[in-house]
Amino acid sequence: MAVKYTLLKECPHTGARAGILHTPHGDIETPIFMPVGTLATVKTMEPKDLKEIGAQIILSNTYHLYLRPGHQLVKKAGGLHKFMNWDRPILTDSGGFQVFSLGDLRKITEEGVEFRSHLDGSKHFFTPEKVMEIQNALGSDIIMAFDECIPYPATYEYAKNSLERTTRWLKRCIAAHENPHSQALFGIIQGGMYLDLRTQSAEEILALDLPGYAVGGLSVGEPKEEMYRVLEHTVPMMPKDKPRYLMGVGSDDALLEGVYRGIDMFDCVLPTRIARNGTAMTSHGRVVVRNAAYSEDFTPLDQNCNCYVCQNFTRAYIRHLVKCNEILGLKLISYHNLYYLLDFMRKIRQSILDGNFPQYYKEKIKLINEGREK
Amino acid sequence: MAVKYTLLKECPHTGARAGILHTPHGDIETPIFMPVGTLATVKTMEPKDLKEIGAQIILSNTYHLYLRPGHQLVKKAGGLHKFMNWDRPILTDSGGFQVFSLGDLRKITEEGVEFRSHLDGSKHFFTPEKVMEIQNALGSDIIMAFDECIPYPATYEYAKNSLERTTRWLKRCIAAHENPHSQALFGIIQGGMYLDLRTQSAEEILALDLPGYAVGGLSVGEPKEEMYRVLEHTVPMMPKDKPRYLMGVGSDDALLEGVYRGIDMFDCVLPTRIARNGTAMTSHGRVVVRNAAYSEDFTPLDQNCNCYVCQNFTRAYIRHLVKCNEILGLKLISYHNLYYLLDFMRKIRQSILDGNFPQYYKEKIKLINEGREK
Repeated sequence: MAVKYTLLKECPHTGARAGILHTPHGDIETPIFMPVGTLATVKTMEPKDLKEIGAQIILSNTYHLYLRPGHQLVKKAGGLHKFMNWDRPILTDSGGFQVFSLGDLRKITEEGVEFRSHLDGSKHFFTPEKVMEIQNALGSDIIMAFDECIPYPATYEYAKNSLERTTRWLKRCIAAHENPHSQALFGIIQGGMYLDLRTQSAEEILALDLPGYAVGGLSVGEPKEEMYRVLEHTVPMMPKDKPRYLMGVGSDDALLEGVYRGIDMFDCVLPTRIARNGTAMTSHGRVVVRNAAYSEDFTPLDQNCNCYVCQNFTRAYIRHLVKCNEILGLKLISYHNLYYLLDFMRKIRQSILDGNFPQYYKEKIKLINEGREK
Repeated sequence: MAVKYTLLKECPHTGARAGILHTPHGDIETPIFMPVGTLATVKTMEPKDLKEIGAQIILSNTYHLYLRPGHQLVKKAGGLHKFMNWDRPILTDSGGFQVFSLGDLRKITEEGVEFRSHLDGSKHFFTPEKVMEIQNALGSDIIMAFDECIPYPATYEYAKNSLERTTRWLKRCIAAHENPHSQALFGIIQGGMYLDLRTQSAEEILALDLPGYAVGGLSVGEPKEEMYRVLEHTVPMMPKDKPRYLMGVGSDDALLEGVYRGIDMFDCVLPTRIARNGTAMTSHGRVVVRNAAYSEDFTPLDQNCNCYVCQNFTRAYIRHLVKCNEILGLKLISYHNLYYLLDFMRKIRQSILDGNFPQYYKEKIKLINEGREK
């Protein structure tokens, strides 16, 4: 198998666990947050910046790379790692989420999804086979099955039909996947907010014995409590010797709650997206640094942070850059936000290894909630 | 005096010379190109990037910093060096060029220039005294006198009146300058394209015994041959023991021609501005990397370049980034273009020290012209 998971330690009081995910491009210490590099670049960040902040794996988007620059071009370049000069692991999603998010621009059939490009309206057709062809060309270490990420809320019938199709599509993905020895195909458990459907999906997907599994269809607009309820139901069904990936989650509280419930891998555009709006993630909540309140604040974004940005630049300077639309401002906040989340995950992991995750969890959730109320 | 120039070597066949400019924030090896950091940031570049490419001094703009974030805020931050986290030398211009470029938005009197902000139309008044106050607050190592940069073409009478006012304003700058021991005030020789007026201006300005002098009013739209003609006339009048600065010049051929005629310092937004349009400066001419011709070109921006960008990224990847409006694309080309010019200046300097500048000049001008004809 292309990837292998080693479980190092389980928290006896929660679902939290620490492990190592071995991949063709190196080991990943889990639990881990994966920065998102939509178009073969984590926005504003150079590969060396990503290494500096300790990024061990990044995520990139099949839908976007298929449209620009095209997977055939990436293949000609020697694969995605070489194209973007990133020699550590890469996970690519299946494009499912992006395609289904196109709304009126797409039509779902049993064969696949016909959609129009959000860029130029041109017509395209994604099938499980096509999505495998694209991800095989990209050469990412972990590739995701083509699934349907259903909207919230969805009817029981819709959710059931969809999850069953997702299982059928997964079987077609497995059949079409050309590089199972160098690229690990992860299955995705769906079922919406219906616990019995989550059970059905888990049983069907897990029966196919894949190198890893994701919980999909969460963080799509439902209250966080709903997400946690689905995780509490679903994760315990997942095997202990395989990595568990919660897709599209990146707020600090949700990462902590996800780890609490047994998740190993997360990704989200949140840290880089809010950075570009001038908002920093800090140990005391979010700081909207573009606000006038920070114009003469000569302290770092986060006084508890050891990152390069917090060691070298002030809120006043970064605010000035953001107000002037200077690219460096976006870069500095993106860098800090990603460092903040990666460092947070390192601390979570260490607390699991040290046997005091429950205490760490309690303290952190309290701090996060206090920061939110400020 | 705040700065001191040591002449190391003169080319016996041309005006070229190599030296060291000692400043409160370190020594600068001349001839030198100064990257422009308009708003307290060299666009897209971090201070550590600037050090990596060997930038020894940067330029920042009084007019822009006065408007945003305001010189008083920069002073509160501990000065411009601390505000932007750049501990090497900084030169600030006087705002003269920007203010005069405002056209209908400004009115010149003997007292100074009334102008409206290009941002919000608010009314402001720059005098020699005000411009000294601003630059004293910024704390830059080298500050420029408030002069009038006249348009091209200009009548003889306009040029003469203007240069005489520039001399009177320079005397007011000297009187108002509060930190002559930590900030070196450079005078600016004007006179347009009229050689006798250049002589008059040089005589008036040089009589005031300042730590350095600039040749202003060039690179304002005149043919390059005109600029070289004015330099050939003016530079020989300038003292050998003071640095000579040609303002606003940054194309590789003009740098070479400037050094040939005895110039030590240059600045220009060109390398970063054309980078943001997707154009790279290379040893074989400019490469418009956003062009379709480079979509599958897996070679570096410049095969003869040793910079981080050329060692790690291909034209195809950078083109992809530029086409997708990814910030990293602008950053990578900016980085390379600045490295290209700084490295070019290092080579020019070395050829002067090695005693073979004339030969280097001849080969390079030939290469540059061939690149242009391609």
